[in-house]
Amino acid sequence: MLHFIMNRDFFKKQLMITSKAIESKTTMPILTGVKIELNNSELVLTGSNIDISIITGTEIKSKEADITTFEKGGIILNANLLLKIISALPEETFEFEVEDNHLVHITSGLADYHLNGHDVDNFPRLPEIISETPLEISSKVFKQLIDETVFAVSKQESKPILTGVHMTYDGKELTAVSTDSHRLSQRSISIELSKDESQELDIIIPGKSLLNISSIFGEEDQEIEIHLTSTQVLFIANGIFYYSRLLEGSYPDTSRLIPQTSDTKITFYTQDILKAINRASLMSHEGHNNIVKLDISKEKVLLSGNSQEIGKFDETLKVADVHGNDLSISFNPDYMKDALKVFGSSMVEIEFTSAIRPFTLRPVEEEEKFIQLITPVRTA
Amino acid sequence: MLHFIMNRDFFKKQLMITSKAIESKTTMPILTGVKIELNNSELVLTGSNIDISIITGTEIKSKEADITTFEKGGIILNANLLLKIISALPEETFEFEVEDNHLVHITSGLADYHLNGHDVDNFPRLPEIISETPLEISSKVFKQLIDETVFAVSKQESKPILTGVHMTYDGKELTAVSTDSHRLSQRSISIELSKDESQELDIIIPGKSLLNISSIFGEEDQEIEIHLTSTQVLFIANGIFYYSRLLEGSYPDTSRLIPQTSDTKITFYTQDILKAINRASLMSHEGHNNIVKLDISKEKVLLSGNSQEIGKFDETLKVADVHGNDLSISFNPDYMKDALKVFGSSMVEIEFTSAIRPFTLRPVEEEEKFIQLITPVRTA
Repeated sequence: MLHFIMNRDFFKKQLMITSKAIESKTTMPILTGVKIELNNSELVLTGSNIDISIITGTEIKSKEADITTFEKGGIILNANLLLKIISALPEETFEFEVEDNHLVHITSGLADYHLNGHDVDNFPRLPEIISETPLEISSKVFKQLIDETVFAVSKQESKPILTGVHMTYDGKELTAVSTDSHRLSQRSISIELSKDESQELDIIIPGKSLLNISSIFGEEDQEIEIHLTSTQVLFIANGIFYYSRLLEGSYPDTSRLIPQTSDTKITFYTQDILKAINRASLMSHEGHNNIVKLDISKEKVLLSGNSQEIGKFDETLKVADVHGNDLSISFNPDYMKDALKVFGSSMVEIEFTSAIRPFTLRPVEEEEKFIQLITPVRTA
Repeated sequence: MLHFIMNRDFFKKQLMITSKAIESKTTMPILTGVKIELNNSELVLTGSNIDISIITGTEIKSKEADITTFEKGGIILNANLLLKIISALPEETFEFEVEDNHLVHITSGLADYHLNGHDVDNFPRLPEIISETPLEISSKVFKQLIDETVFAVSKQESKPILTGVHMTYDGKELTAVSTDSHRLSQRSISIELSKDESQELDIIIPGKSLLNISSIFGEEDQEIEIHLTSTQVLFIANGIFYYSRLLEGSYPDTSRLIPQTSDTKITFYTQDILKAINRASLMSHEGHNNIVKLDISKEKVLLSGNSQEIGKFDETLKVADVHGNDLSISFNPDYMKDALKVFGSSMVEIEFTSAIRPFTLRPVEEEEKFIQLITPVRTA
């Protein structure tokens, strides 16, 4: 039965990655466990919550993992408890041995744990979706695409399709769009995902999956393979297999939401407007409506917020440039803060058509590729 | 009406200290506010939740505070909102002016806040307890005394007297005792609190007050003045006045709880036993009873814990020395962890009389001055 010795910290690192797919409370108790398997070439850890599954593979010959194998096999152990135990072990290496009745014996120094495990046959099977022609993308680029859009997905399960990010690839450009119907973020990147120019992509990945992917694959720059079926996507890099279900249904056509013209245009220094919005939101958060107001004229751009009970705020904004018609418009400052925070750019262009039409935000350096939209709030 | 200009960060620092006495939800809404007063010599901030009150005074001539005074006066403003606003102001200084109807005008750079304040007359009066013969103690010593005992106070309001730390001074030694009736911590320090040797002390200070005092006064080494009435205590240092009510009633006589003899004595390296107890507690936390067991003999000291569902743990402990009778004893590992964590000492002596009598822990370097007691758990 399964029996090996290996480096504690390396095992812990792999277990922590796998654990991102494991929930401690679930309707299927077996899924609180991590499946640990040793074959001829690898130690494999698997975790799953059905929606997301993660497999980490460690090559037996890995120097860092420092594995001595005695016998192949597999077992399932509660992932949360195992992580605590591994973290608390006294020595740098530990011995892991499965005994009769799925009892697992873990020793390190003088410390001895006997844990009740479960048969690996109880673990659900993962879909087989390895494709011969995967797409390939740099983890750095993919992380950027995620970080710039995932914050704007809907948090409400009542509109399930909007809890995901819509990703499309037309052979030249990879585009990600997210919206919760109050604001929208759309990012495009010119990239060659595949040698086959006819290979296209049109999928909706759950926001929660993308947050994990950004944190698991985003640390070092590497190539990620993307394998697809109609209901599942699999990301592979550096021995890590990340499975996610896709959201099914058709994503709304967001392109028609983006205004093609504008009547008022202001250019701000991103940090200046972000800080001022933050000051205004201190008042709007205290009030009944979370709304701030922008009064735009060529002479002056005034940001204000007020709450009858608490008091009021106003600030004349520093602007780099103002063009077009005068306008007064009200909006939720939190959407504006979220939008501004993801712009790495030092300057941002904000364009308005009217007090009741969505307005756009674009970073000055990359206005063609990155656009955000915020719907104003109508005030009496 | 009240009008001054001053340094933003210095005001923020003082407001944060005062805010430790201010609760954002309270049955007396005026107490969500901070009272701000400027007199001929000082800017004074006051916060209170009735049990605890804190006053910070800033001298007008303080260079760091950089105060320009225009007019004396006072106002009450919501402390939580004010702290957020001050933190978000764009410039290093801000102007604060009270206008008609208790409206407060705060400006910094181009940012303008108008806030609804309240008349200072609405604020409750603090007790007058300045004494001509205060006790004096070093903040470093007092912080140590607090940190070594306050963790063991009762968290249950059903035994109010045990939610405080009992402090006594007999003219030579200051002693602090806390117990939640499952464990006890007692620390004594030889110290001259007063030139008058007949001055004694016997008070019970709420644990919550002591945690604040440790964080407010413990940062730099300074002398703290202690002023007392029968129901209130006032600590003064560095322009900060900290008022706390005392717990009324008589504290149980804890001295008779401490065993005078022992039949089994073990000396451990503190870090070794702490880490082993932590490993054992991983299993006991999963089980129905949070209990670990120590089996002591001259040949071997074995720590074990088990949970029928999850599995079991055992570890042969590294001991520096074992004396006396063999013994098996069960106890809550969390009490042991708390006790060991506050021992700065590298070695600890644990002494037992029987499996059903409390056992003691003492740091080897200072065994006369610091003792902790843990009540074992009877097992069938």
